[in-house]
Amino acid sequence: MRPYEVIKTKRDGKLLSAEVIRAFIDGYVKGDVTDYQMSAMTMAIFFRGLTPPELAAWTRAMLESGEVLDLSETPGVKVDKHSTGGVGDKVSLSLAPLAAACGVPVPMISGRGLGHTGGTLDKLESIPGFRVDLSIADYRRLVKTIGACLIGQTATLAPADKKLYALRDVTATVDCIPLIASSIMSKKMAEGIDALVLDVKVGSGAFMKTIENARTLAQTMIGIGTEMGKSVVALLTDMDQPLGRTVGNALEVKEAVEMLRGEAPADYTELTLALTAEMLVLGKKAGSIDEARAKLEQVIRNGAAEKKLHELVAAQGGDPSAIADLSRLPKARTTIAITATSSGFVTGIDSESIGLAAMTLGAGREKTTDVIDPGVGFVLEKKLGDAVSAGATLVTAHVNDETRMPEVMERVRAAYRIGATAPGRRPLVLERLG
Amino acid sequence: MRPYEVIKTKRDGKLLSAEVIRAFIDGYVKGDVTDYQMSAMTMAIFFRGLTPPELAAWTRAMLESGEVLDLSETPGVKVDKHSTGGVGDKVSLSLAPLAAACGVPVPMISGRGLGHTGGTLDKLESIPGFRVDLSIADYRRLVKTIGACLIGQTATLAPADKKLYALRDVTATVDCIPLIASSIMSKKMAEGIDALVLDVKVGSGAFMKTIENARTLAQTMIGIGTEMGKSVVALLTDMDQPLGRTVGNALEVKEAVEMLRGEAPADYTELTLALTAEMLVLGKKAGSIDEARAKLEQVIRNGAAEKKLHELVAAQGGDPSAIADLSRLPKARTTIAITATSSGFVTGIDSESIGLAAMTLGAGREKTTDVIDPGVGFVLEKKLGDAVSAGATLVTAHVNDETRMPEVMERVRAAYRIGATAPGRRPLVLERLG
Repeated sequence: MRPYEVIKTKRDGKLLSAEVIRAFIDGYVKGDVTDYQMSAMTMAIFFRGLTPPELAAWTRAMLESGEVLDLSETPGVKVDKHSTGGVGDKVSLSLAPLAAACGVPVPMISGRGLGHTGGTLDKLESIPGFRVDLSIADYRRLVKTIGACLIGQTATLAPADKKLYALRDVTATVDCIPLIASSIMSKKMAEGIDALVLDVKVGSGAFMKTIENARTLAQTMIGIGTEMGKSVVALLTDMDQPLGRTVGNALEVKEAVEMLRGEAPADYTELTLALTAEMLVLGKKAGSIDEARAKLEQVIRNGAAEKKLHELVAAQGGDPSAIADLSRLPKARTTIAITATSSGFVTGIDSESIGLAAMTLGAGREKTTDVIDPGVGFVLEKKLGDAVSAGATLVTAHVNDETRMPEVMERVRAAYRIGATAPGRRPLVLERLG
Repeated sequence: MRPYEVIKTKRDGKLLSAEVIRAFIDGYVKGDVTDYQMSAMTMAIFFRGLTPPELAAWTRAMLESGEVLDLSETPGVKVDKHSTGGVGDKVSLSLAPLAAACGVPVPMISGRGLGHTGGTLDKLESIPGFRVDLSIADYRRLVKTIGACLIGQTATLAPADKKLYALRDVTATVDCIPLIASSIMSKKMAEGIDALVLDVKVGSGAFMKTIENARTLAQTMIGIGTEMGKSVVALLTDMDQPLGRTVGNALEVKEAVEMLRGEAPADYTELTLALTAEMLVLGKKAGSIDEARAKLEQVIRNGAAEKKLHELVAAQGGDPSAIADLSRLPKARTTIAITATSSGFVTGIDSESIGLAAMTLGAGREKTTDVIDPGVGFVLEKKLGDAVSAGATLVTAHVNDETRMPEVMERVRAAYRIGATAPGRRPLVLERLG
């Protein structure tokens, strides 16, 4: 079938066979299907959607456009976690050693930050010496020996997704659920996992603004997993404020290590435990969520989780002493308090504004070529529901370039909403699916 | 506004301002808006449509992407006709000299044939010496002195449309009414016309298969014309069989000359008179359709129309003796009868199949680089409603390459449907709008 006919078939709401989808995506990777044909196709998909069999075929074609890792040399059920992205989301940094310490192998291929969201790879690289560009051979070896490895996307995994994502990003088809779901799932399936836990964020700071959309996205990804014979569980979680108290790379690493010591803020701790408990159940290291949580609390108490992180850091070229003694992590030159201009309760913190303010400080990238400043960022001294008085510190900014402060201060202050009464709170985990 | 935002705005069903549309189309012509962004946009338009003000802005931006001819040096109301394309449609060949003979200046920029439809330029070029690549200066001069000129699209007129049409053709957004309407109208407005008559074909052989779609397209084009201060009238006309009795370039020129002598088949004669009468009224050379038809019959009877065609041919470099003595037009080497295999009445003639069969003989192009054979084609001996007996000739094929005949014969026979009873006929002109 010619590309024209394939686009027209979808445009007219008719079904595409798995063979046709495969040929279209293979053709796109080879260049026989042009960018302008693919962008017409993705816009048609935006309007017409993909049926579950079409979506499974689309994802499979993207997955099989590149190398699909086989980790069968590592015994056990390999489980990864994926988050749809948030501000202050350092869950992977503590979740991977926690799951590995409980015997669940965690093969994790992560991304970098762009715009208001940070990236796990950037956070890890704030640990002196830490390398995320290991070879696939090293990745396999560490998953087998250490029980976890966190690296960056390689050119050989799901190249169709890489090409397609860049195209969607400039043709207004990023926010299209079947395309989001197939993009995530094709990359995750390429890692060599057996099961996956999804953290689908909901709220003003998240990609999915409503619980309905978040649920649809989660169900779509679970459906793809089922079609491909993988177990997938999704938690819909609140993203109405940044997670934990830190935003910024070394600051978040510090908070992640504190979590493994049982000393982190409740929201971040709770979310990490909830997601990791699901991994333990999927990985058959616990028969129930309660049993899983007990095991996780044990590896926190007995130091096994923190020890696993030290092993992981050392194995990936990092300096474990920088996380044993957190004062050795990169630090900003100075700290500046951003204070409240009125009194009351924190009724809202716009995560996107906080993320953009952190980016302005140098903690994130505006464009992919920007260089991250690992030491800068924020400590949020006040979170949702906290009482504040005018002049009290809302946020402590860790700063290297003070010339950016006027803009940063304005953004942070605009992000905080102060009201007369404390807001009602919704639970962190809103729903569980799968 | 960034291209991304423009696409997203349309995708989400929100309104685009005239300024934004202008910037988007200008950016496309310059290359700042890429092909893949424009193809996403046109697919979004396929689903969301364009409101009348958006459509007027889109058309105006396409029109003003190039030169807009000013024919004000020619007195009177300049009127052109546009047909949405048919098989055997040689109306322009007789309509232009008829209107010009009655004093209506006809500036006509036409296209070439592709696939099953023929093109006016190809037909004209079967007249020995006839040139369709005149300069714009010559075009202006002939509209003023002869009262008509028929040339091909130039690179300077509506370049946005040229680029966009080529893109739509490979991204499945050809059959989208606002894009069809703006494409036609931007090209026609660039010719320097004051008014336009549209022949919107309806039926199995036409682009618009239903009267509802044809009506929508006609109303959309009339709306654009109104927004731009031009008078537009549309006739919805039947295209359930090829027009007249000939399909093929020199054969159609011959039939067109016969029309000017009052010797052509009724359907072709009637359609030409109906369309040209509208032009005379729009051109203020007749106060009513009846008066217009009387004038047209007069210029046929007194030979003025045929004389005007001779003038036009001579002025465009052609040999008028080839249309004075029609036996001097290019001819095929041989003729072959294609006969009926059963008896009854002709209940249907599939125009597209006839057009494709003519293309196979060499009368049309499969791809734009194919060379036309001017002498080949068909004379349809039987048309809708005619009685046939098995073995009688349905079509006389004019042939240079007999090796193509098995395929041609199969296509022609498949195009004819023979039934037991004569079909009811619908009128040629189904509706008049504007």
